[in-house]
Amino acid sequence: MKLFKYSELTAKDIQKLVQRNVDPANEIRAVVEEVIANVQQHGDSALIDYAQKFDKVTLTKLFLDKAELEELAEAITPEQKTALETAYSNIYKFHQTQLKTEQKVETMPGVTCWRELRPIEKVGLYIPGGSAVLPSTFLMLGIPARIAGCHEIVVCSPPQKSGKVNAFIAYVALLLGIDKIYLVGGSQAIAAMAYGTESIARVDKIFGPGNQFVTKAKTLIQSTTTTAIDMPAGPSEVLVIADDTAIPAYIAADLLAQAEHGSDSQSVLVCTSAAITEATLAEIEKQLPVLPRAEIAGLALDNSYIVVTSSLAEAMDFSNRYAPEHLILATHSWEQITGSIINAGSVFLGNLTPESAGDYASGTNHTLPTSSYARAYSGVSVDSFVKKITFQHITREGIQNIGHTVEVLAEMEGLHAHRNAVSIRKS
Amino acid sequence: MKLFKYSELTAKDIQKLVQRNVDPANEIRAVVEEVIANVQQHGDSALIDYAQKFDKVTLTKLFLDKAELEELAEAITPEQKTALETAYSNIYKFHQTQLKTEQKVETMPGVTCWRELRPIEKVGLYIPGGSAVLPSTFLMLGIPARIAGCHEIVVCSPPQKSGKVNAFIAYVALLLGIDKIYLVGGSQAIAAMAYGTESIARVDKIFGPGNQFVTKAKTLIQSTTTTAIDMPAGPSEVLVIADDTAIPAYIAADLLAQAEHGSDSQSVLVCTSAAITEATLAEIEKQLPVLPRAEIAGLALDNSYIVVTSSLAEAMDFSNRYAPEHLILATHSWEQITGSIINAGSVFLGNLTPESAGDYASGTNHTLPTSSYARAYSGVSVDSFVKKITFQHITREGIQNIGHTVEVLAEMEGLHAHRNAVSIRKS
Repeated sequence: MKLFKYSELTAKDIQKLVQRNVDPANEIRAVVEEVIANVQQHGDSALIDYAQKFDKVTLTKLFLDKAELEELAEAITPEQKTALETAYSNIYKFHQTQLKTEQKVETMPGVTCWRELRPIEKVGLYIPGGSAVLPSTFLMLGIPARIAGCHEIVVCSPPQKSGKVNAFIAYVALLLGIDKIYLVGGSQAIAAMAYGTESIARVDKIFGPGNQFVTKAKTLIQSTTTTAIDMPAGPSEVLVIADDTAIPAYIAADLLAQAEHGSDSQSVLVCTSAAITEATLAEIEKQLPVLPRAEIAGLALDNSYIVVTSSLAEAMDFSNRYAPEHLILATHSWEQITGSIINAGSVFLGNLTPESAGDYASGTNHTLPTSSYARAYSGVSVDSFVKKITFQHITREGIQNIGHTVEVLAEMEGLHAHRNAVSIRKS
Repeated sequence: MKLFKYSELTAKDIQKLVQRNVDPANEIRAVVEEVIANVQQHGDSALIDYAQKFDKVTLTKLFLDKAELEELAEAITPEQKTALETAYSNIYKFHQTQLKTEQKVETMPGVTCWRELRPIEKVGLYIPGGSAVLPSTFLMLGIPARIAGCHEIVVCSPPQKSGKVNAFIAYVALLLGIDKIYLVGGSQAIAAMAYGTESIARVDKIFGPGNQFVTKAKTLIQSTTTTAIDMPAGPSEVLVIADDTAIPAYIAADLLAQAEHGSDSQSVLVCTSAAITEATLAEIEKQLPVLPRAEIAGLALDNSYIVVTSSLAEAMDFSNRYAPEHLILATHSWEQITGSIINAGSVFLGNLTPESAGDYASGTNHTLPTSSYARAYSGVSVDSFVKKITFQHITREGIQNIGHTVEVLAEMEGLHAHRNAVSIRKS
């Protein structure tokens, strides 16, 4: 990990450090566009061809049904079941509080406005299954979709070598009451959900992380169809703010947990203490070699860095400019600095709150904005699965109260028919 | 307006009727890409060139300052002032209720999760000023930005022939406490706010409607930068559901108010009564010719249609498939059918609630999803100007309670460093 002193960094240096490559693969655009066009044209048969080509499996049908999922789920151990159910319960508990009814507001006597939530009718969930199969992502997307009350939940996940999904994915489907999983991965899955095929319904919004092909497909269909996406998603990242009350072994473990995701992941440490920094580097040397994914993590750390600051305020300033997906406050003073957080996806407070708790089971969502998107985007929540529709009702008294205002404003904008629509009701 | 009978429409016919052309102008893509590239490269000087080329004005500086806005605002009449202030007050009152603090949730003993709102730091507001100058749009975007607490609000609006903005826009700026307006319009304004120039700050999210060039620029920068947009916006539209308790003159006025926006606007009537339908058509014949924008409205009506259904349930079914930006329920029975609304941007209830009330002053926002985007998008609200950041805190007891679950799940996904980050804290 490269080491920088905050006081020696120019504004330009900082700008460069916080910059992630948001579109590292525009060269894949043509590839993805071809996949999308092919799925749009040939539907299911294109999906079967791509399963052969990319996943190296011959599919005789495109989905697993409930009986097949139940059979697959039998391979799961009681301990694994309990873990998935505990995670389910915590995630459900937290997300359920996000579903709120709103109050009516009488803005003028006789003029009442309010918002009502409506679930997005048809949603598509993409559950990645490449180098790591992610049942946790299935929970993170399926639970808020269920709480929101979405009518149709289409799930796509790439087929494993077995031509099926693994037992964990199957078990989560059953937990969520989802009885069909389409064996489709990559950009072809996104295309199928955006345009629809013979067997896969076109959805209103697509959720889920994926590799660069999946992400490129999501951003492309977002601009060419009316299907929405949760957010653009890049490589995962963590920023740890630490002072001399932090514990180096914990910081090292957190940085490595991020780094093992992929060689393009980034782990950033912003630390007020040179001693803690050194001790953390020593801990990394100790913890890294024994990891099964040591090689990936090592590559990610080459792409990572440490900034030494002279205060937590400086550290927070750097963090806000970075706008991290995950922010860990490894300090006893976390309560004093949370108020100054401006940009972050999810925040982990104090020395005993590792990111991996939130990745799996604390209750918060792990589908979060990366690549500095946390400046404008929130992570996935029940909000992401609903629309808030505004309603208004005006009484006879109300139209008298508001009418003249509308008439004058319509006149100002030169929109006479707008004025008429009020005048005709007033008289 | 074309007339259809719902019972005679096939699923395919309905599909065709509800389809709006979401990308009517991909041929303008190249034009807009060139503008964006030019602004990115030449900054302010490109903006001054475009003001000359597109707006036919020679700018000596790119913005109006507070003194200039105050001077411009002097042209406004007391009646106009009062109307803008009433609208401001109603919109403020309604939007203020959208800013909420959320409760903490203890998902397990010692594991606490919550969300905190943070304003998006830098937002850009685009206020159109072509065929109609829209001070109302400035209110609709500026008020929620202020309530959210955004630190920097960049406002761009095309210069009028005077080389300035009009008095209404100037007065709204003062109402909002905004003391600078950049005289930049079209796709060049979007490019300037997405990339930044010498005088215009790069923003985190861009809001506001505009013509097809503005919309194309917004969708382009959304996929090439980390700047977010409020929503893709197409031509405006209204769908009126009416039964025999509706008042034809009111329906006609509402359809015409929509139609006068632009020749590409769409006004749809879905009516259970043949008599009301006929009377509405007669009312349109009567009201249309006297409108100053009769020609535009006439063209829009050519592009519009009526569907006659045999029940309000059928009408609502059609409306949900259409997913209208504005939905007017012109019936005494509106309370019985609002529950079956699935897709809509903003809803106007009963015979005395014209869309134009919501366009200007009832309190709801008029920046709404068009072109069937209401299936997945909500209109602009305070939510659009904030992020919801998740926080979690785990105590010593909490890590014991949640630890094993995380370890098992991390193991299932083959992510050992994720497991370690918990194990090291448990022991």
